Amino acid sequence: MSLKLFYAPGACSFVPHAMLELAGAPFEPMMVKLHKGEQRSAEYLALNPRGQVPVLVDDGEVITQIVAILLHLDAKFPQAGILPASGLARTRALSTLVWMNNTVHPTFTHVFMPQKFTDDEAAQKAIRAHAVQTYRGLLGEIEAMAVKASPWLAGDQPSALDAYALTLLRWGGYAGIDPTTLPATWALSQRFAALPAVARVIERERLQLNVYQPPTAA
Amino acid sequence: MSLKLFYAPGACSFVPHAMLELAGAPFEPMMVKLHKGEQRSAEYLALNPRGQVPVLVDDGEVITQIVAILLHLDAKFPQAGILPASGLARTRALSTLVWMNNTVHPTFTHVFMPQKFTDDEAAQKAIRAHAVQTYRGLLGEIEAMAVKASPWLAGDQPSALDAYALTLLRWGGYAGIDPTTLPATWALSQRFAALPAVARVIERERLQLNVYQPPTAA
Repeated sequence: MSLKLFYAPGACSFVPHAMLELAGAPFEPMMVKLHKGEQRSAEYLALNPRGQVPVLVDDGEVITQIVAILLHLDAKFPQAGILPASGLARTRALSTLVWMNNTVHPTFTHVFMPQKFTDDEAAQKAIRAHAVQTYRGLLGEIEAMAVKASPWLAGDQPSALDAYALTLLRWGGYAGIDPTTLPATWALSQRFAALPAVARVIERERLQLNVYQPPTAA
Repeated sequence: MSLKLFYAPGACSFVPHAMLELAGAPFEPMMVKLHKGEQRSAEYLALNPRGQVPVLVDDGEVITQIVAILLHLDAKFPQAGILPASGLARTRALSTLVWMNNTVHPTFTHVFMPQKFTDDEAAQKAIRAHAVQTYRGLLGEIEAMAVKASPWLAGDQPSALDAYALTLLRWGGYAGIDPTTLPATWALSQRFAALPAVARVIERERLQLNVYQPPTAA
């Protein structure tokens, strides 16, 4: 068995990255430098024509899409607790996972890359400002889940949900949202980041958990 | 066992709706009239605070998010072929399913409801025009998959992918994209719609497969 994970520091690839370390799976971490445009290199596009991370390569088979990668790893490492094993607990965790992936994550894309949605610069500004408000509301929904975490979002084991919540809260800092204003999610993220397996990922990606910069007085 | 599916005609709820009929599962179809705003009624918001379809109610348990609903039904009716049973075929189908859900579907939201992304009317027009172009490209990716279908998108059995492809192609008509210009997807959708179980869903939702209106001369 050979597993390679193509990831970019701080991107949503953090979620499978953390899960692979938590599972104790042997894998080769392959860094893709987004700021250098490596995701648009001919070599990377041959791997994933959509030019996105993460990509998992399992014995030469290329797997894209974070949710598909997580379900693939979950089938491979069932003891790792990437998601609850079965029943309603699994369904509910999947419901939250795909919502993070199809709603919260794309909302951040509007904050971070409004140019994906229009070439008009004034419209880009309008999109970004609107998305910051929407994103704040969505982090509020995650905060309500974190308040009820017992002790993790999917129950008694850390799961993909905690890794995604940490990522989305971290991104909030770039949107001007102070993570400490979402105290339950902030505490959960710090607790998750302190797990020895996750700490190795944080170190490899050189992540700072709180990237929020308070506005400076003019 | 009691199953209820809350759906809106023509919405993405068509996907679990078609899968329930294909599975031969006993269920109660519950229509939600979006044009009358029923998804924002106090009764519906008590069911799903996000005011979205589909919702599956399984013995009183409320399940939201199309991908989670499909995986829940797949675990319940493993013989139905909602997704390939295991292995790389399942992972690849999941990868396409979540991409339809997190990329193609949200792009259509920008065409259909640009007001979700800004209050500025000029910016809404810019967003819509840009999204129509993006959507056309994404339908092109689905067309490439449909060209290789053998004979269905996930292999030898009709699956959730065919139902989603039909839905996304149909929506293209509202974006001014003639479905017959994507001949493999159009043929696949017609073939899928003609399956007796799916034909019942098409009739219940009163769907017209091709909603494209050619531009009229001024």
